[in-house]
Amino acid sequence: MASAMRKVILGVAVSLDGYIEGPNGEYDWCFTDQDYGMSDFFKRIDSLFIGRKSYELSLTMGDAAMPGFPKLTEYVFSTTLKKVKPGAILIKGNIEEAVKRIKNEPGKDIWLFGGASLTASLLNLGLIDEIGLAVHPIILGGGKPLFSNVQGRIPLNLTDTKKYSSGLISLTYTLA
Amino acid sequence: MASAMRKVILGVAVSLDGYIEGPNGEYDWCFTDQDYGMSDFFKRIDSLFIGRKSYELSLTMGDAAMPGFPKLTEYVFSTTLKKVKPGAILIKGNIEEAVKRIKNEPGKDIWLFGGASLTASLLNLGLIDEIGLAVHPIILGGGKPLFSNVQGRIPLNLTDTKKYSSGLISLTYTLA
Repeated sequence: MASAMRKVILGVAVSLDGYIEGPNGEYDWCFTDQDYGMSDFFKRIDSLFIGRKSYELSLTMGDAAMPGFPKLTEYVFSTTLKKVKPGAILIKGNIEEAVKRIKNEPGKDIWLFGGASLTASLLNLGLIDEIGLAVHPIILGGGKPLFSNVQGRIPLNLTDTKKYSSGLISLTYTLA
Repeated sequence: MASAMRKVILGVAVSLDGYIEGPNGEYDWCFTDQDYGMSDFFKRIDSLFIGRKSYELSLTMGDAAMPGFPKLTEYVFSTTLKKVKPGAILIKGNIEEAVKRIKNEPGKDIWLFGGASLTASLLNLGLIDEIGLAVHPIILGGGKPLFSNVQGRIPLNLTDTKKYSSGLISLTYTLA
């Protein structure tokens, strides 16, 4: 039986004005009082796509910063890094080729964890299968936008929504 | 019996990446196949707040461009215009003072119809009471952002959501 190709899922928390971080890198506005579907999401994935900046930030935080994270195979996308931490995999060549190869390998789905530059590259290459946004009930007024440098229109299908008592609403879209 | 103060409601269609117009002013991506709650919304309002650019655009389109619109008292906010069309009211002085005065006058609620500059001014002055976004299932990749020049964080309360079969989701927030 042929298994379905692995999906790349962009999954992030955003403010209503579309920022994934505040003007000084803050993410203290992200709700942590509930699970918000993360446990179920973690069951679907076994790998992580991460851009260079997010990777370097994660190194400074250490593993302790992300309790409850499943063990994930980490793919770090960078044109400048020479090496990455033990266990992680550096992707520095042709992004399209590498991502297509990884998606065709056996495994669970892959979490694209923000990173505006990597997100834009993969969106423009048509390599993102699903977008899950945890839209927080706040306007930040500035910061790092989730979407930038996207080239042209990308139509979406809204497949799921979940509204939480805190005012967070999660929106799930698939891409054609 | 004292009546409640009139509310200023920002009500607009946005793409998932937060644009109210495409890069060349396009709004052909806005769904028109259903009512999307507009009939009910029109019953709540009797006035319109509009910025100078949107006002000038509306002049070029004529009334025919907006069939089904109720008859609204139009307040045009501009520091440069000398006069506006018959029936419309030009607001060119202190925005805060004018909006507070109008909100205290008897009447129905007031529709703030986009306009990034006017929206930012009223948000920063704390004069918007409600935000209703018709989030369309599309990434535009560029255009005129709904939110820009907002100063500092603005917490919101999610009060209503409605998901449509077309993939549009309407989100309603109140401001503290």
